[in-house]
Amino acid sequence: MSTTTTTTFTVTGMTCGHCTSAVTDELTAIDTVEQVDIDLIAGGDSPVTITSSAPVEQSAITAAVDEAGYTVTF
Amino acid sequence: MSTTTTTTFTVTGMTCGHCTSAVTDELTAIDTVEQVDIDLIAGGDSPVTITSSAPVEQSAITAAVDEAGYTVTF
Repeated sequence: MSTTTTTTFTVTGMTCGHCTSAVTDELTAIDTVEQVDIDLIAGGDSPVTITSSAPVEQSAITAAVDEAGYTVTF
Repeated sequence: MSTTTTTTFTVTGMTCGHCTSAVTDELTAIDTVEQVDIDLIAGGDSPVTITSSAPVEQSAITAAVDEAGYTVTF
């Protein structure tokens, strides 16, 4: 049996595909994260959904998005 | 004696620092280009100045900016 966890949150301040790439790279660097989907709202609040093989600590998500240079809201 | 050439043009469509980095990387890949200065106007027409050790072909600039994914106007 395999289970996946889906987590949704909002990332603020991305303006272009380079921004979404930076955020995607940081989030996929989290061990259990398998997929990252970002619906870019340029300059606004973009919904982000990550799929992982186990629940991801909120602090890990915050750290990843912060590392990319953006702000997360849960 | 050494001479430098300064060339100015406009790049349209950059929105953030990732965009300016992409354009700077492509322009500095041109052999003679020594420095790239971009005054980012997010989402608008950004003035770009390059300094080179010899005149740079307009086609080389167009190709570099196009490679980065943006549009140049001379």
